[in-house]
Amino acid sequence: MSVNLEGNILVTGANRGIGLELVKQLAENTGQEAHIYAGCREPDGTRAEALKQLTIQYPGKITAIKLAYVADEGSISTAVQAVSERIGSAGLNVLINNAAINTPAPPGSFLETKKKHMMDVYETNVVGPFILSKMFLPLLQRAAERCPTGDKMSCRRSAIINISTVFSSIEKCPETFELAQVYAYRTSKAALNMLTRCQAEDFKTNNILVTAIHPGWVRTDMGGEQAPVTPSESVMGILRVMSSLSNKDSGTLVDWGGERIPW
Amino acid sequence: MSVNLEGNILVTGANRGIGLELVKQLAENTGQEAHIYAGCREPDGTRAEALKQLTIQYPGKITAIKLAYVADEGSISTAVQAVSERIGSAGLNVLINNAAINTPAPPGSFLETKKKHMMDVYETNVVGPFILSKMFLPLLQRAAERCPTGDKMSCRRSAIINISTVFSSIEKCPETFELAQVYAYRTSKAALNMLTRCQAEDFKTNNILVTAIHPGWVRTDMGGEQAPVTPSESVMGILRVMSSLSNKDSGTLVDWGGERIPW
Repeated sequence: MSVNLEGNILVTGANRGIGLELVKQLAENTGQEAHIYAGCREPDGTRAEALKQLTIQYPGKITAIKLAYVADEGSISTAVQAVSERIGSAGLNVLINNAAINTPAPPGSFLETKKKHMMDVYETNVVGPFILSKMFLPLLQRAAERCPTGDKMSCRRSAIINISTVFSSIEKCPETFELAQVYAYRTSKAALNMLTRCQAEDFKTNNILVTAIHPGWVRTDMGGEQAPVTPSESVMGILRVMSSLSNKDSGTLVDWGGERIPW
Repeated sequence: MSVNLEGNILVTGANRGIGLELVKQLAENTGQEAHIYAGCREPDGTRAEALKQLTIQYPGKITAIKLAYVADEGSISTAVQAVSERIGSAGLNVLINNAAINTPAPPGSFLETKKKHMMDVYETNVVGPFILSKMFLPLLQRAAERCPTGDKMSCRRSAIINISTVFSSIEKCPETFELAQVYAYRTSKAALNMLTRCQAEDFKTNNILVTAIHPGWVRTDMGGEQAPVTPSESVMGILRVMSSLSNKDSGTLVDWGGERIPW
């Protein structure tokens, strides 16, 4: 299984962690025709330095897109227009909803978690992907329609990839609860799984694949220093999994090794 | 299997539909010592007429509690104080999180659903139960501690019951999606299931049972006129199920007949 992805690919939360690594490996592993849209809050800010370096390292391959706030309809509408103008008739092949927050910091116990945490985390982790997918739907449909009829669903055709987590699994909650309670994060990610499954059902007539992927426990700002998996290893896995996704995987949650995780 | 519930029981959304019927049947089917707290937005308003009639019909058995908005910390704090003063050392035996909204009205398609729907429904259906359970936790713990040591978990000891829905099942989503898409409602209820499972894990050392129950498709304002189950039948089932819940059921989703529903 190797990386086999092409076309126009948009990654949110692209200035650090898994998002930044996705942009890097996609730039490295896709052909001349592929183009990576890297969404982040402030493409010109100091926190996007590493992303700026990548755009220089891969000239003409990456376009940074300002998504001032992933769940803000106004800012997304500007981003859609910017992407749309550049893409033209080709459409958007993959939307990777990677941007997410986890607050209060782990363990995120019941008593530590306040109403504001619950609302903020839901807004970014669920409503963000919801609105993004709504506003990019016409571009995703365009990409799906350009494929020869009868082709199966794939990330080369048209797909929404939601970066989820093993903590989203209600079934496995008792196994992982001691490690991190993170009420606001867990509830949001279970809702994101539901969104994934609803959209997979909704968009199957459009041949748009929708899959949630658990990236592993990754050494990022969110994952912490004790995490066993490097961003590079995780993203290598994610891109291999994305390359192999087909009809049967739409509406599922899989890990970065391709294994199914129960809801 | 019959109704075997006692003690102090709080029902939210108690002025209509399933909530009103829960208050009625609990008043009918519990002993002298039991007391029902009926939470609703405006206990003195015109929409609480039926609840007012019940309090007259069962004198001394029901106390209406103003929960101006289930997800508002200020209003809950007042309600907690009101309940606390009346309950004294006995504690609260059962908190039934029944209040919920479903907007936009079914089918609630992807395109119809806006950011505001997603946020409002989550606030009422998930953050409401979250904050309510947090603020009533000391009273639930008090009830749990009064039980002889070694007793198993039950609704007679101390429990949180979250009224969920079969639409909350991510696994069963493809079976029911055509019937009602209700994105905002489904995502919120999947999150409520996660909350149920987290709390079950968290509170097991306190001997507080936490279970989500699907009430069936019920002929209420929310369920619509074509629903096959009457509120009376549904609530009869819910109370029977509640009467039989024990350790093994904490952290699960069951229907009003007691059958397990997959996540």
